[in-house]
Amino acid sequence: MLGLMQDWPLTVDKIIDHARNWHGHREVVTRSVEGPIVRTTYAEIHARAKRVSSVLQDWDVKVGDRIATLAWNSGRHIEAWYGIMGIGAVCHTLNPRLFPEQLAYIINHAEDKIIFVDLTFIPLLEAVLPHCPSVERVVVLTDELHMPATKLPGAECYEALLSTASEDVAWGGFDELTACGLCYTSGTTGNPKGVLYSHRSNFIHTLLGLQSTVLGATPSEVILPVVPMFHANAWGIAFGGPAAGSKLVMPGARMDGAAIYELIESEGVTFSAAVPTVWQGLLTHLRENKLKIPTVKRVLIGGSAVPESLIRAFQEEFDIEVLQGWGMTETSPIGTLSNLPPELKALPYDEQIKWRVKQGTPPLGVELKLKNVAGQEMPHDGHTYGRLMIKGPTIAGAYFKGEGGEILDNEGFFDTGDVATIDPQGFMQITDRAKDVIKSGGEWISSIEIENIAVGHPKVELAAVIGAAHPKWDERPVLVIKLKPGQAENKQEHLDFLQGKIAKWWMPDDVVFVDDIPLGATGKIDKKLVRERMKDYRLPNGG
Amino acid sequence: MLGLMQDWPLTVDKIIDHARNWHGHREVVTRSVEGPIVRTTYAEIHARAKRVSSVLQDWDVKVGDRIATLAWNSGRHIEAWYGIMGIGAVCHTLNPRLFPEQLAYIINHAEDKIIFVDLTFIPLLEAVLPHCPSVERVVVLTDELHMPATKLPGAECYEALLSTASEDVAWGGFDELTACGLCYTSGTTGNPKGVLYSHRSNFIHTLLGLQSTVLGATPSEVILPVVPMFHANAWGIAFGGPAAGSKLVMPGARMDGAAIYELIESEGVTFSAAVPTVWQGLLTHLRENKLKIPTVKRVLIGGSAVPESLIRAFQEEFDIEVLQGWGMTETSPIGTLSNLPPELKALPYDEQIKWRVKQGTPPLGVELKLKNVAGQEMPHDGHTYGRLMIKGPTIAGAYFKGEGGEILDNEGFFDTGDVATIDPQGFMQITDRAKDVIKSGGEWISSIEIENIAVGHPKVELAAVIGAAHPKWDERPVLVIKLKPGQAENKQEHLDFLQGKIAKWWMPDDVVFVDDIPLGATGKIDKKLVRERMKDYRLPNGG
Repeated sequence: MLGLMQDWPLTVDKIIDHARNWHGHREVVTRSVEGPIVRTTYAEIHARAKRVSSVLQDWDVKVGDRIATLAWNSGRHIEAWYGIMGIGAVCHTLNPRLFPEQLAYIINHAEDKIIFVDLTFIPLLEAVLPHCPSVERVVVLTDELHMPATKLPGAECYEALLSTASEDVAWGGFDELTACGLCYTSGTTGNPKGVLYSHRSNFIHTLLGLQSTVLGATPSEVILPVVPMFHANAWGIAFGGPAAGSKLVMPGARMDGAAIYELIESEGVTFSAAVPTVWQGLLTHLRENKLKIPTVKRVLIGGSAVPESLIRAFQEEFDIEVLQGWGMTETSPIGTLSNLPPELKALPYDEQIKWRVKQGTPPLGVELKLKNVAGQEMPHDGHTYGRLMIKGPTIAGAYFKGEGGEILDNEGFFDTGDVATIDPQGFMQITDRAKDVIKSGGEWISSIEIENIAVGHPKVELAAVIGAAHPKWDERPVLVIKLKPGQAENKQEHLDFLQGKIAKWWMPDDVVFVDDIPLGATGKIDKKLVRERMKDYRLPNGG
Repeated sequence: MLGLMQDWPLTVDKIIDHARNWHGHREVVTRSVEGPIVRTTYAEIHARAKRVSSVLQDWDVKVGDRIATLAWNSGRHIEAWYGIMGIGAVCHTLNPRLFPEQLAYIINHAEDKIIFVDLTFIPLLEAVLPHCPSVERVVVLTDELHMPATKLPGAECYEALLSTASEDVAWGGFDELTACGLCYTSGTTGNPKGVLYSHRSNFIHTLLGLQSTVLGATPSEVILPVVPMFHANAWGIAFGGPAAGSKLVMPGARMDGAAIYELIESEGVTFSAAVPTVWQGLLTHLRENKLKIPTVKRVLIGGSAVPESLIRAFQEEFDIEVLQGWGMTETSPIGTLSNLPPELKALPYDEQIKWRVKQGTPPLGVELKLKNVAGQEMPHDGHTYGRLMIKGPTIAGAYFKGEGGEILDNEGFFDTGDVATIDPQGFMQITDRAKDVIKSGGEWISSIEIENIAVGHPKVELAAVIGAAHPKWDERPVLVIKLKPGQAENKQEHLDFLQGKIAKWWMPDDVVFVDDIPLGATGKIDKKLVRERMKDYRLPNGG
């Protein structure tokens, strides 16, 4: 027996309709690529998004056609976003930070028909487009005054197009499962793969994001999404801001500390979201100039693990709560958030920080599990690690055009590629990328766990564990050691040191002494570079 | 082209799964019908709900079967709720405040198979059940110690059943459109009609409710739902509390001021939801005993218009913000909430109150429009009123078994039966029940608006305006007046008093003086009874 409630497809055109109807006068403020701060409202954005739709329909864009954007966060980008999605076309957000050849690959793979581009990226697109035969037109997101002389074929001026376009165009009317957005993962290995969001998934993700424990957006919030719309949908803010009627402050091309501070100060920003490096830049600017940002109550930080120092700095110097988030392009991106429950909030701050550095718990609608090699579910004890698996209506079920094949396990969980723990309070913490884990005889060996023990030997300065190819076991661990100055090389003593502290079959097959172990920008060992330097290495016993 | 996100049906068993997995230790505290305060957790509730499912499956309950509850808000009621819904049966919440014959009608109409009943309602059920042949079993929500001697056929003891039941039962696995809950409207005319919620509608409603601007539930909140689960799903709290991991405090049978105060004080309640009369009772208790409730930050009040005096009393005497909500059984029930946007919050309180007495704006997922007699949409100017129409995935599309026929207009909107205005800030205010509006010449005349003016005349104690049949205009307004003691009857002075304050064509065709105007239980004029007493009245000019 079916329920008797209304059939109301969850399509994202209803989000901007809602913003127009109930929060029409609320502002969207942009630091434009041309320079000045420009101000618009949800009512204007709605009307102009309708014009974008008209233009696309005049160009014969159909439901399912991929229309790309190569643009910073701006009011115009939001107009294009809703204008594309409203008629059932797919908004493909291109990441300008990719190498030109990757960008060409993605545009060709997506078969993008039209690209909306910011002035900043014209040179990039001029280099890429000759290799992208599917692209029929390029719309430059500027006015006629700033329209550049470009060799781009079929280049059109956004404002000129909109000035004559009709607002009389119908949105929606298609199934909620219709594709809506496309975003490619910038995976470190292999070609980028496309995540194809549906209207349903984006709508549900918007509702997940509006919870008090996530964005918690309200009409009183002034939200500054520094995280770009091409970075997993600006973590949902391009939908959640209009849905809640929050004022949006769009940073355009400038994300340096001074620029971000200026927007926070002049627009009264209450909430912002960005990756750690942006916040480091802001902190430096604030400290150097002895500035405060009292309007800001909370910041959402994600994209990579948030250093404890950053969390403490915001709290202790600026009275701002850091909300750490974890997610992926494949998860729309909300996965977990480090919201502390009341019993943890009641602890002294130095105790709380043990949880604040973790990635947190999932909201309703996101299921997590830890899986070992045999596919068994691992306990939430805070130390047993497993492959982090994720499931829900906002999680990818497959990549565009079937790249990567079947990506779900037999219970329908997506493999994040991360290894993690979950503690008794439910807080998840990423401990390793699964690719750094050594696969030996169908089981896993944690590189990080062996490293953490090996580095405890008094003669060792740095230790890295990598997998070396083995004909029988697939991979076997090799311990790479940089000794402290003046120490003598002795393989056996390091193996002896591990004895009894790790499982026997985890014991490295060899120890290699090196003069240097490379560190990444964040001070962590650069595993990829270690592996690259060791690429000609062969196991001593021949494997 | 369809998106490629996971197929994850929105079913409510996932809500209690989520609570178990991520907020398993969070408490649900109940003032039990037997007397003592009892404490449980979401983990225990989950396990015991599984046992309820096992018991039902042992009794051959299938997907779609209607299983009723006749119970106060309690931990056991929540267990039964999820135990029933988890296996695809329909949880039919019976309202014990209905007359026995209405209750019998509803049980028969729903064809309830089993009823879970609180000790309080055994006598009521003993009177009703002989007329309800579909009911095979009654489960008394108590332990063996308190099991009463009852003549109810097939009466079983809840705790005895659970003590031997298995927890090994599968939930979900059905379509998200599957029926989930059933709640009958207690309409003032005709038989009650059943609203049949789906898993999808309840899940989406839960997400709507978790927004900061609605319940805004978090793990730090302690929520006291005084509003019963049989009253439109406790306004969503029976889902939203577990979904957010909030502590729940369930008041059981006692909703008087003293009992509510005691729970607030002992459990540290931060948020509560109830109808105005409950809050009036609490206010009286607090004032008489000079008490404060500092843990409470916000209260949600709905069910009928909230008097300004109540909003002011909470704010000014107790520093508690009143959130007014409007909704119906047919709307799951979230319709609108009186959340003030920043520009209104910035006004002096005496100005704010003009919006705080209104019912507010809809969250994302609820569409509203005002429609005149001709079906045209009316402007949001704050004074033009129209029939309030509502649309969304959580709004009824039809009543159970097709009662009432087609209930949506040609744009898919449900008719609320209310007449309302919407102001330029988007705030909706109910002005009249549509059945009380006078239909004259294809236009509407607001009875309430004329009454509010007429009662301002110094000689008038009470005034009611009703429609009298008119051959040409269909209806014309008649002003019914109860004078203050000792005042002389003079029709013309009351018409003169209205002159210039209402449109000319709104002017009543007659004034009728009566000795008494009947009031309903809530102190409002009982329009239905006024109309009944005037049923033989004819317009003086013959119409």
